[in-house]
Amino acid sequence: MDALKSAMAEAALAIEAELDRLIPRGDGHEKRVYDAMRYACLNGGKRLRPFLVLESAKLFDVPRPRALRAAAAIEFVHCYSLVHDDLPAMDDDDLRRGRPTTHKQFDEATAILAGDALLTLAFEVLAHSETHPDGGVRAELVAALASGAGATGMVGGQMFDLEAEQRGKSFSLVDITRLQSMKTGRLIAFACQAGAILGQATARARQALAAYAEDLGLAFQIADDLLDAEGTEAEVGKKVGKDAAAGKATFITHLGIDGARKRARTLALQAAKHLDLYGPKAQMLSNVALFVVERRA
Amino acid sequence: MDALKSAMAEAALAIEAELDRLIPRGDGHEKRVYDAMRYACLNGGKRLRPFLVLESAKLFDVPRPRALRAAAAIEFVHCYSLVHDDLPAMDDDDLRRGRPTTHKQFDEATAILAGDALLTLAFEVLAHSETHPDGGVRAELVAALASGAGATGMVGGQMFDLEAEQRGKSFSLVDITRLQSMKTGRLIAFACQAGAILGQATARARQALAAYAEDLGLAFQIADDLLDAEGTEAEVGKKVGKDAAAGKATFITHLGIDGARKRARTLALQAAKHLDLYGPKAQMLSNVALFVVERRA
Repeated sequence: MDALKSAMAEAALAIEAELDRLIPRGDGHEKRVYDAMRYACLNGGKRLRPFLVLESAKLFDVPRPRALRAAAAIEFVHCYSLVHDDLPAMDDDDLRRGRPTTHKQFDEATAILAGDALLTLAFEVLAHSETHPDGGVRAELVAALASGAGATGMVGGQMFDLEAEQRGKSFSLVDITRLQSMKTGRLIAFACQAGAILGQATARARQALAAYAEDLGLAFQIADDLLDAEGTEAEVGKKVGKDAAAGKATFITHLGIDGARKRARTLALQAAKHLDLYGPKAQMLSNVALFVVERRA
Repeated sequence: MDALKSAMAEAALAIEAELDRLIPRGDGHEKRVYDAMRYACLNGGKRLRPFLVLESAKLFDVPRPRALRAAAAIEFVHCYSLVHDDLPAMDDDDLRRGRPTTHKQFDEATAILAGDALLTLAFEVLAHSETHPDGGVRAELVAALASGAGATGMVGGQMFDLEAEQRGKSFSLVDITRLQSMKTGRLIAFACQAGAILGQATARARQALAAYAEDLGLAFQIADDLLDAEGTEAEVGKKVGKDAAAGKATFITHLGIDGARKRARTLALQAAKHLDLYGPKAQMLSNVALFVVERRA
């Protein structure tokens, strides 16, 4: 695990620099939105999704500068989703990674606009010729990210989740699995898929990565539910115990703490298994699956 | 003008059908966001921006189904921007085109998500192979729309505008021109540019359209200020007199009513002039420029 941790730390630095480079600068009257974009993104996060892009890109020998652009694009989408989800009309969170949320640090209007701008920037970055010389590859990246992030993916998952909270619907395990697959799984799947798209990989190679991503995404979400149930605010860097307080059905409601932990570990092992065909090149991705279920934040 | 009005009405019907076709359907727990997307888009609007796409595409003999997709994409972006701008944290509007705004009809969280999903859908539509067989063309459309809609374009313009309102900054005519060019001009410019991109037009043809779009966008915004100053709520379908009530500097503050009207007409004539090289094929686009400054809503 130490090799993984230092690889993730090294990648996180490179990603942070890439994000910083890609967010616009300027002294015009719109500067406040640039500042808010920067605040929302440059916070020393784990950069799990970008790391998945970089590692999946290595499987297909994708040049690093291209992989970094795709990694930045997905992180922009992830950060925008956090900014909007934290808004008072949504989850109403004041704290994120131990700092005030963007609307607390700036104001609600600026946070809405910064989120909109980060989402837009993600597509601008992918469509730019520096991301790949073949326009078809760039368009495929855009289509895949949009599909994962939009109404039938992440945004739909957030709507689904709000319906659960606000309308007191109680969900079965099948419902919760579908919700989480939309809300977090689809973007994790894109992160794993991006390297294969950039590397113009074969269908078989893509399928193995897709199967890995599906198990990984589910394991990740079960681990998230465990953190909310068991972690402390100091460890996790945001409010915990929210699901129970909101009376929300989660994986833990259905599986119990021990059952959930066991399921997450099984999924992580299963995820790693799909990568056998890549051999030792996929070692980091295999390790990520285990890391995701063992993490404390 | 009658030929223009019937062409715009015919195009608006085709656009409405295309928007309806492209917004996802389903009965899952996320259905509410689909309903809100549909509510925000399907409202019998004038569809000015899509009309500009269709007419600019005609100059380069672009097949109609491709032009309709690009037209729908820009309308999704326009509609998302209205949904987010109407939110309580932003312009706080209850009425839009004579109906409750999306957050009034649904709720704030749903409106935020519907806006996010519409923006994402715009890029998904452009990147899809049905929009153009050449991936490079699709990627160019995505990059141009993202550049016009993001932090250095429309979203930046909205930030600029909020700074003016909330921080009481009084802007010069140069500032207001830059603000409006970002807030509305860039998206109008993309609408005119989209046909040229789809038609893989020459640099000279693109420059003429870009010059047309710049004058048109400015004329459009001056006309908008005139409507806010002179129109009635029943005519315009939204609150009027807002700029004066907010003590906001507009084109009218600097030019006066008569001066603003004169400037808008001059710009409209100048816009049409740039299209001379296209001959009679560009008649509708020339007419649009005059329509924009004469409209009452």
